[in-house]
Amino acid sequence: MPIVTLLTDFGLSDEYVGVMKGVILSVCPDAVTIDITHAVSPQDTAEGAFYLQAAWPYFPEGTIHTVVVDPGVGSRRAILAVRRQGHIFLAPDNGILTGLLDAGDVEAVRVENRQYFLPDVSRTFHGRDIFAPVAGYLARGLDMTALGPPADPEHLVRLDVPRAVITADGAAEGAVMAMDHFGNLMTSITTDHLKEIGCTGRMEQVRVHVGGHRITGISTRYTDAAPGAPLALIGSRNCLEISVNRGSARDDFGAEKGTPVRVVIT
Amino acid sequence: MPIVTLLTDFGLSDEYVGVMKGVILSVCPDAVTIDITHAVSPQDTAEGAFYLQAAWPYFPEGTIHTVVVDPGVGSRRAILAVRRQGHIFLAPDNGILTGLLDAGDVEAVRVENRQYFLPDVSRTFHGRDIFAPVAGYLARGLDMTALGPPADPEHLVRLDVPRAVITADGAAEGAVMAMDHFGNLMTSITTDHLKEIGCTGRMEQVRVHVGGHRITGISTRYTDAAPGAPLALIGSRNCLEISVNRGSARDDFGAEKGTPVRVVIT
Amino acid sequence: MPIVTLLTDFGLSDEYVGVMKGVILSVCPDAVTIDITHAVSPQDTAEGAFYLQAAWPYFPEGTIHTVVVDPGVGSRRAILAVRRQGHIFLAPDNGILTGLLDAGDVEAVRVENRQYFLPDVSRTFHGRDIFAPVAGYLARGLDMTALGPPADPEHLVRLDVPRAVITADGAAEGAVMAMDHFGNLMTSITTDHLKEIGCTGRMEQVRVHVGGHRITGISTRYTDAAPGAPLALIGSRNCLEISVNRGSARDDFGAEKGTPVRVVIT
Repeated sequence: MPIVTLLTDFGLSDEYVGVMKGVILSVCPDAVTIDITHAVSPQDTAEGAFYLQAAWPYFPEGTIHTVVVDPGVGSRRAILAVRRQGHIFLAPDNGILTGLLDAGDVEAVRVENRQYFLPDVSRTFHGRDIFAPVAGYLARGLDMTALGPPADPEHLVRLDVPRAVITADGAAEGAVMAMDHFGNLMTSITTDHLKEIGCTGRMEQVRVHVGGHRITGISTRYTDAAPGAPLALIGSRNCLEISVNRGSARDDFGAEKGTPVRVVIT
Repeated sequence: MPIVTLLTDFGLSDEYVGVMKGVILSVCPDAVTIDITHAVSPQDTAEGAFYLQAAWPYFPEGTIHTVVVDPGVGSRRAILAVRRQGHIFLAPDNGILTGLLDAGDVEAVRVENRQYFLPDVSRTFHGRDIFAPVAGYLARGLDMTALGPPADPEHLVRLDVPRAVITADGAAEGAVMAMDHFGNLMTSITTDHLKEIGCTGRMEQVRVHVGGHRITGISTRYTDAAPGAPLALIGSRNCLEISVNRGSARDDFGAEKGTPVRVVIT
Repeated sequence: MPIVTLLTDFGLSDEYVGVMKGVILSVCPDAVTIDITHAVSPQDTAEGAFYLQAAWPYFPEGTIHTVVVDPGVGSRRAILAVRRQGHIFLAPDNGILTGLLDAGDVEAVRVENRQYFLPDVSRTFHGRDIFAPVAGYLARGLDMTALGPPADPEHLVRLDVPRAVITADGAAEGAVMAMDHFGNLMTSITTDHLKEIGCTGRMEQVRVHVGGHRITGISTRYTDAAPGAPLALIGSRNCLEISVNRGSARDDFGAEKGTPVRVVIT
C-alpha cells in the first residue's frame, strides 16, 4: 500500500491535518498516511527542513512526502514535486527541500496541472486543495511528470542554512539548530567537523562550550553522565548533541535555537 | 477499506484515543482510523460541531464519523447514528450534529442495541464501550437501522449557534467563532452576509472592526499584507477570517471566542 | 493486517514517532501502526506502565505493542519481548511491563539478534534502530523466539508500584496515580479495596478524603454531581476516580501524582 507522509506547521488542534487525510483517501483509498510532525514552528521553513532530513531516509522507497510549511500560500510561489532515490517530495518552492537539492541527483517539476487539484482552490489552504489531492494521485501511481513542466533544480529556492566552521585556532564553531521534546540540543557540528579538529571517539581532552557552560569529553550514551549531569555525544542524527542525563539541557542551560556552540581540543 | 474518523475532546495525553482504535480494529480489522482532532475544549459541543462541519465533507462517501464530545456520558442522553449523503455520524444527542440536522435530508436512529456494544459498559467511557465497537460494526457493513429505533430528526437536540446579523444601518455583525493554531480568527460572518451588505471582492471601502482594531479592505491571500500587518480575507471555510501575515491575530488583537466583529462599507 | 501499537515518552513535536513508523513499514509494508500515547512524562516508567495496562487489553490478539520509555537507552539494560494472551510486548527491561509480569503466564526472550535491527544502531535512539525493525519483523510473522535467548520472567526488573492498603481502623488508603486530560484523578484504590471495607454501590456513608477536601458517597456517573461539584466514582479503569462534573479535579483540588486519598465508612 502506498505511503503518504505529512510534515506541516498546522499543529494538531485544528481539523487541518485530518482534512488533508480525508482528501488523500478520497483520491487513493488504500493510501497509508503517516505523520512525521505537525509541530514545526509556524512558517519556519528551516526547522521543517531539519525534521524532513532526519525523517525521510527511514521510509521505504516509493513514499510520497507531503511537506506543507508555506508562508507564501496563495502567492505566486511555485509548488514542487521532487524525486530523489525513489521518494517523491511535494513542497512549496521556499527552500524547505534545500537538503535534498544540495545532495543532488534530483528530478523536479512544477505542480501546475489543475486537473489533480480540488475543483475549488482556496487562497489559504493549499494543503487541502492542492497538496493532498496531488499526493493522492501520486499514491495511485500517477507519474510525477504529469503534474507540470520540469523545473531546473539549480534555480529552485534554497535556504541559507548556517553551517559550522573550523576556526584558525582549530576549534569547531556552530550553533544549536533544534531542541527536542526531551530538551536535548541538536547542533550544526557534525562528525565530519569533529574529525577535522582531531576529535574522534570519547577523547577526554575535548571541551564543549555552550551558553556559558563547559562539558568535558564526548560520551557515547546518556547514562555515561550521572542523573542530572550534562554530557555531549553524537546523536542519532549524526551531529553533536548536548544533553542532561534524565534532565533537560534546554532548561538547564537556557539554550535556544542559535545559541553558539564551540568545540576545542585542549 | 472502510474509514472511521474520530473527533473528540479527549486530548492526546491519555490512552483514550488509542484504546478506541483498538476496539474498532478488534471489531473491523481492516478499518482505517483517522483523527480529525482531539483538541476540542473539554465538553464544548459548539466547538466540536464547528470542526466537524469543516472536516466531514472532505472524506469519501461511506466514511463513519465518530464524534465524542459528551458531557452527559452515563446519563440518559441518547446516542445517535445519523446518515447524510452517504456518511454516517455517531454522536451523543447533545447538539453537536446541529449543522447536519439543519441541512436536512438526514436519517437517524437511536443507538440502543447492546449486542453491538462491549460486554461491560462503563458509565464514564462510552467512547470505548459503545461508540468504538458500533463504529467497528458499521465499518464492517452493518446497516445503521440495526442499531436501534428510528429517531425523528425534528426532535433531536440542536445547539443555539450564534449567527451573524445585518443591522438596520447595513453593517454585518458577528463574532469570533474559533481561533486556529496560527492565531487566525474564524468569524460567524459568511460570504453571504458580505454580499448582503454589498461587499464583494476586495473593495477598499470595506472596514472590519474587531477588538478595538480596524482593518481596511478584504484581501485575497495572507501575503497581501506586509509581514506583521493584519488583514481580513475569506478563509478556507468560506467565512470572514482575520489574520496577521506571519503573525497571530489572536495574540495581536487579544481576541477570544465571542469577540464581536463588525463589517461596514464606508 | 498486523497491528503495531506505539507507547513512548517521545512527544509529538519531533520526528521520532514518524521515523519509527517509517522503519516499521519498511520491514512490514502492511502493518497498521496505532499510537497509544506519546505523552508519558520523560523517563517515567511507572506512568508508562499505567497507560499500557489500561490500553493493551482492548487490542485484538496478535497485536505487537512497542513500548519505549527508556532512560537506560544505550546502556547494558536488556530489551525484552514478552508474550501474554497472544499479544507481544517489546520494551526495555526496566519494569514498565510489571503489570504483565505480575499477572503471570508470560513467555519472555531477550532481544539480541542483530539481524533484525537496523544495520547501524545508535546509542541514543533504539526506538528507531531496534524496537521499530523488530516490531516490523514480528508483524511479518517472525516467531518471538528467533529474537534471542529465553529470559526467566522471575528475574526481570519490576517496579515497586505503590498499592493501596486497608488500615487497622478499616479505611482504604491510597494515592493519586495519574491525572487525565480532563483533570480526573485516577487513584490506586480499586473496587476490591472498596469491597474490603464494605463499600459497594453508591453508599451515602462513604467519605472520600483527598487534598483537604471531603466527598460524600460514590456516584455512578459524572452527571450525578451538579456542574462544578466534585464526585467520586468507579472509573473506566476499575479504580476509584475523583472528578468534578464539567470541571477539573486536578485544578480544583490542587492534586498531583502521589497526593494521598483515603476512603472511610462513617
